[in-house]
Amino acid sequence: MEKKDLFLGADTGGTGVKFVVTDSAGDILQRGEVPTDPDNITTSMQRLKATVSDVLGGDPGLPRLAAMGLACAGIVNPGTGMLGRSPNLPGWEDRNLAEDISKVFGSIPLALANDVNGALYGEFRQGAGRGCRNLVMIALGTGVGGGVILQGELVVGTHCGAGEIGHMVLDPAGPPCTCGGRGCLEAWAGSTGLLRRAREVAAEGNPKSALARLVSSRGQALNTLNLAELARQGDSTTVEIFKVAGIRLGQAIGNIVNLLDPDRIIIGGGVAQAGDLILDPCQATVPGLVLAREAKNIPVVTAELGPLAAAVGSACLARETGRPD
Amino acid sequence: MEKKDLFLGADTGGTGVKFVVTDSAGDILQRGEVPTDPDNITTSMQRLKATVSDVLGGDPGLPRLAAMGLACAGIVNPGTGMLGRSPNLPGWEDRNLAEDISKVFGSIPLALANDVNGALYGEFRQGAGRGCRNLVMIALGTGVGGGVILQGELVVGTHCGAGEIGHMVLDPAGPPCTCGGRGCLEAWAGSTGLLRRAREVAAEGNPKSALARLVSSRGQALNTLNLAELARQGDSTTVEIFKVAGIRLGQAIGNIVNLLDPDRIIIGGGVAQAGDLILDPCQATVPGLVLAREAKNIPVVTAELGPLAAAVGSACLARETGRPD
Repeated sequence: MEKKDLFLGADTGGTGVKFVVTDSAGDILQRGEVPTDPDNITTSMQRLKATVSDVLGGDPGLPRLAAMGLACAGIVNPGTGMLGRSPNLPGWEDRNLAEDISKVFGSIPLALANDVNGALYGEFRQGAGRGCRNLVMIALGTGVGGGVILQGELVVGTHCGAGEIGHMVLDPAGPPCTCGGRGCLEAWAGSTGLLRRAREVAAEGNPKSALARLVSSRGQALNTLNLAELARQGDSTTVEIFKVAGIRLGQAIGNIVNLLDPDRIIIGGGVAQAGDLILDPCQATVPGLVLAREAKNIPVVTAELGPLAAAVGSACLARETGRPD
Repeated sequence: MEKKDLFLGADTGGTGVKFVVTDSAGDILQRGEVPTDPDNITTSMQRLKATVSDVLGGDPGLPRLAAMGLACAGIVNPGTGMLGRSPNLPGWEDRNLAEDISKVFGSIPLALANDVNGALYGEFRQGAGRGCRNLVMIALGTGVGGGVILQGELVVGTHCGAGEIGHMVLDPAGPPCTCGGRGCLEAWAGSTGLLRRAREVAAEGNPKSALARLVSSRGQALNTLNLAELARQGDSTTVEIFKVAGIRLGQAIGNIVNLLDPDRIIIGGGVAQAGDLILDPCQATVPGLVLAREAKNIPVVTAELGPLAAAVGSACLARETGRPD
């Protein structure tokens, strides 16, 4: 009989299941992605199993698989195994993930997390949060998600609803948010909010400005990387758009530091690739808002693990949940 | 030799040290207050010892004292025993409370907390938070303080700076705050902020209005109870002042629930005595801001233990720290 010495970490989004297979030291033996079937968890898990089968000792049974971790977009209850609301995975909603997974992978130790918590845990163990005990992540994507680790443990919340940092209201008279509210962090610092603001500024200003020309030429394909490129070329109007977002991110971080006083804040997600354009105004804002002297200069750093963060984090959770022989 | 079966819980503010002596079941055998010497911790502790000496078995040695808890205004480090910044206790700042206390009370198990955390812990064990695991307290006093319990543990933070809920910025263009910033929760919902707003509204409106007459007649003695009384008589201008504070409190709570998803929010402090005047608009605001369906109707309740909360909480911490014979 083979030794159960390997761990599978997966991260399910609306289009793909990213995964890593690691040994007990965390070294990655295989990485990849299989398509998600958003209507059927079993199909998705069978695709994943077929792809990792060789390295895990072969089907049936995957004899080297010691434990598995799965991160999933939506409201995940790590205790019961249930997935609640998950807009991008309609066929997975209100199902018991633990039961569905065990039908494909057998009765193995399983750790579940939502996707941002998975990414945060990866950064905590092997990325930008190594060595911390108290850590907050803000993921600036299309929307803005987040996660909190205190005393080395993920904060899930009473209804598994913790970490919705994107909907911190920073000014009730601020711009409209996808949630139906106004002035949420997401409305300023998510890519949807940033692009909306760029289009507004372009429409209000000189139609021959560099920003107006970019907005017009890219149309619906406009993304935050296009904006960042223009800002790096020195276009002050576009620099200002990132600055406003960075200041609001700083306001949110000030609020979080006053509430939780963590070791460090990690900024992830696609918008974080704008780098200093958003981080410089953010870091300039935080110290003036934080009350505790010692916490004023809290490090605000970018994530290190990239798109595989949540798969890596799931593998970390699997290693800590599983009991290898 | 007598049995070590009793616990002392104390709460040091700028003017008085409130205390309770309890048995191991939490029943209070003695309660009271001795004057604080803000310049000298030893004097204060000697006064406390002299007052509780009889019930604890007599000096020297207080043979029935199993453990002690002390809550203290300021930045308290429960691990090292150090008190950091503490504006109302200048002679206690930057001292090791644990060492100073042991010189008076001997080498007994000692639990330390800041004052709001002490009050929160009291409510958690014996008041409005009984049975909860995840709990947030907002103390609306002259300023606004706060505390967080997650998974049954007080959240202290990396630099012992957690819980500064009063300085959550709810609108950077809002009214000035004592911290030097603008638009903090404290600037709307602390008594200093409420009274400033009342004076502004009175000065802007009809000098014969009920509010203007109250402000004029009370002068510097005006307090939030005066305002609440006028509002309860139906004065719509004053009702509106509390409503604005309540809506901002609701915004802060929405932000906290989205971040931490606790079981319950407890509102304490003198301003909480305005009751429904501030809680009704607050409770009406929260559900629209909370993202997780199950968390929208989070209970927002008033504290139950009153001015002794932090002394009671310190005694609870003492019982959990100490090891009675």
